[in-house]
Amino acid sequence: MQDWGASRAREHQAQPGPYDLLILGAGPAGMTAGVYAARKQLRVAIVTEDIGGQTSWSSGIENYLGYLYITGPELVAKFEEHLRNFDINLVYGKAASFARSDGIFRAITEEGKEYDGRAAIVAAGKSPKMLGVPGEDKFRGRGVSYCPTCDAPLFAGKNVAVVGGGNSGFDALIQLANICPKVYLIEFMEDLKADEVLQERVRGAQNVEILLYTRVVEIRGDAMVNCMQVENRATGERRCLDVEGVFVEIGLTPNTAFLGGLVPLNEYGEIPVDCACQTGIPGLFAAGDVTSVPEKQIIIAAGQGATAALRAYDYLIRTGWRVGGGSLSAW
Amino acid sequence: MQDWGASRAREHQAQPGPYDLLILGAGPAGMTAGVYAARKQLRVAIVTEDIGGQTSWSSGIENYLGYLYITGPELVAKFEEHLRNFDINLVYGKAASFARSDGIFRAITEEGKEYDGRAAIVAAGKSPKMLGVPGEDKFRGRGVSYCPTCDAPLFAGKNVAVVGGGNSGFDALIQLANICPKVYLIEFMEDLKADEVLQERVRGAQNVEILLYTRVVEIRGDAMVNCMQVENRATGERRCLDVEGVFVEIGLTPNTAFLGGLVPLNEYGEIPVDCACQTGIPGLFAAGDVTSVPEKQIIIAAGQGATAALRAYDYLIRTGWRVGGGSLSAW
Repeated sequence: MQDWGASRAREHQAQPGPYDLLILGAGPAGMTAGVYAARKQLRVAIVTEDIGGQTSWSSGIENYLGYLYITGPELVAKFEEHLRNFDINLVYGKAASFARSDGIFRAITEEGKEYDGRAAIVAAGKSPKMLGVPGEDKFRGRGVSYCPTCDAPLFAGKNVAVVGGGNSGFDALIQLANICPKVYLIEFMEDLKADEVLQERVRGAQNVEILLYTRVVEIRGDAMVNCMQVENRATGERRCLDVEGVFVEIGLTPNTAFLGGLVPLNEYGEIPVDCACQTGIPGLFAAGDVTSVPEKQIIIAAGQGATAALRAYDYLIRTGWRVGGGSLSAW
Repeated sequence: MQDWGASRAREHQAQPGPYDLLILGAGPAGMTAGVYAARKQLRVAIVTEDIGGQTSWSSGIENYLGYLYITGPELVAKFEEHLRNFDINLVYGKAASFARSDGIFRAITEEGKEYDGRAAIVAAGKSPKMLGVPGEDKFRGRGVSYCPTCDAPLFAGKNVAVVGGGNSGFDALIQLANICPKVYLIEFMEDLKADEVLQERVRGAQNVEILLYTRVVEIRGDAMVNCMQVENRATGERRCLDVEGVFVEIGLTPNTAFLGGLVPLNEYGEIPVDCACQTGIPGLFAAGDVTSVPEKQIIIAAGQGATAALRAYDYLIRTGWRVGGGSLSAW
C-alpha cells in the first residue's frame, strides 16, 4: 500500500496548480498534520526552517505516551521517519510572506520560492526568549531547559534555578520546589509579576530562595551545568549559585512575523483558533504552540496537527475538491 | 526520581480524604491524563472498565506519531506501562453514578465502592454500535473495523464493504473508493442519510456499489474476513459480497449513562467541552471521544487528556490546594 501511495503521490506532484494543503512548520503539529493529510491522499507541501522545533532541544521527554523516556532528537527522528514515509514535498526555507488570493494561499520563502495551497495550516511554533548570556547555548539540553513540564522531573533531588518571576516562572518554581532540595528564583525587576495565588503557594517554603533585581551573568559547567553566576543589580554583588538545572522562563515568541496582517493575533501574539483549529479564515487552520491552545505540550500539538489536517480535508471535500486530485470521478 | 515519586505517592495514598483527581476511563485520554497528573504530584485514582478502550480493537495503527505501525493492543500496553510507572490507584469497575457535593466529586461503582476527588476528568470514551450479526465479534480486528481513519490504508487493493449510509459511512466510502478496487455501501433503510455534498463525491465512481434497503446477515471468513452475506429486505434475495474488510459505521454511543443529569449533553450525547477541556462545572473536565471534540483519534484524545490534567492541576492550585498534599508549606 505504501508503494501504491507513493506512486500515486508522485503522480500528484507532477500535476500543475496549487497543492491541496500547504503546511508551515515541521514541529510535532506540522509533522502530524502532514502524516494525516497524506493518509487522506492530499498533495502536501511543508515549508519549514527546521525539523522538530522546540522538541529538538528537549533533553529528555517522559510525557509523550508510547515512550516512557525518549530524548527530543530521538522523538523528532521518529516523527520525521513517519513523515518521510509519504511523498510530501518537504521544503527547507523561512517563509517571508503569506497571503490569500482568490481562495488560494501562497507562501513565499526568503529565497523567493512560491508555494500555493488550496488550504493551509500554520504550525510555525514558538521560539523561547533567550537570556543571551555566555553558556546558555552551550548548555541547552545539558542543564538549561525552556520547558519545566517536560524536564522538571529530570532534576528531582538536584538544586535548580528558575529565571523569570512571572506566572510561567512560578509554575516552574512550584513544581520544582516539591522535588528539589533547593530552588532559586531570579527576577530581573524589583517586583514579581506572578499572580498572588501562585506566589502564595511557595510562601514559607524553606527550600525556595527568591532573588529580586538580579541579573544572570553566566551559566557555567563541565559536561553539565554546575553554576549560574548572578549579579545583584543594586549592589553589583555576584554569586555563583550551585545549581545543576536552569529553567529559563522569560517568555516565548510565536513565529508569526511572516503572516503580516492576514490573521489578527491575540494579546500573546498567538493565532486564535477554535477547538477545530479554525482561524476564522476559510481554509486556513493553525495548530500547536503558535496558537491560542491553552497548554503547550508535544502530545497536545500533535493532536492539534491531526485535528487541523482532518478539518482541512473536510474543508476541501466540502468546497468541491475531488478526492485524489479529481481522479475518483474518472474511475 | 521514580523511587522518590513512588514513595511519595504511597504516602499520599495513606492520607485520608478525597483524591486530588479522579479519572473515569483508561483509554488514550484517561491514561495520558493520569500520567500528566501524576507528574504534577497529584494523588490520582482511575476508575475504568477496561484498559485501552476502542484502541484495543484496532488491528493496526499507522497514525500515532512515534510509531510507523503498531497494533492497538501493543500501543495500549505502552500507554499502560507508562501509567503503571506511577503510583496511581487504578480501579477496575463500572461507574454506576457520579455526583458533585460540596465541591467534591464522587463516583460509585456497580459494586458500591466510592471514590472521591477534588477534581475529575471524564474520559469514558464511546462504544461503537454493533451490527449484532454472527461473525462480527469473531472477526473484529481481523477484517471488521469501526475506524476507517485508523484502518482504511490497511485495506488498499482489497475489496471492502461499509455498513451505514450516513456521513461517517460516506467519509469511509470516499476514503476507501480511492484505494480499493471495489467498495460496497450497505444501507438498511431506503434512503441515504449522508449530506448531499458527500454523496456527490462518489457519484459515477465505477468501483462503488450502493445497496439500499439491505441488511447484513452474517460475516464469514477463515483467519480473516472473506465474505459478508447481505439480504435485500424487499425481495429476500441474499448475496455473499466478496470482501476482506467490513467497516461498521452505524454510530457510536458515548459512555455517559453514569453521569445522570450532572452535565448537559449535546445532540450526539457527548459532553460539550471548550478547548481547555472544561465542562462548565468547576473542577470537572472531560477528554477524548466522550466529548464534543470535532475529531475522534488516538493522538487527539491523548492531547486532550494532557490538556484536561494540566487544567485540573491549575484548578487545584488556584482553589487553594497545596502542592504535594499540603507538604510544601511545612518544608
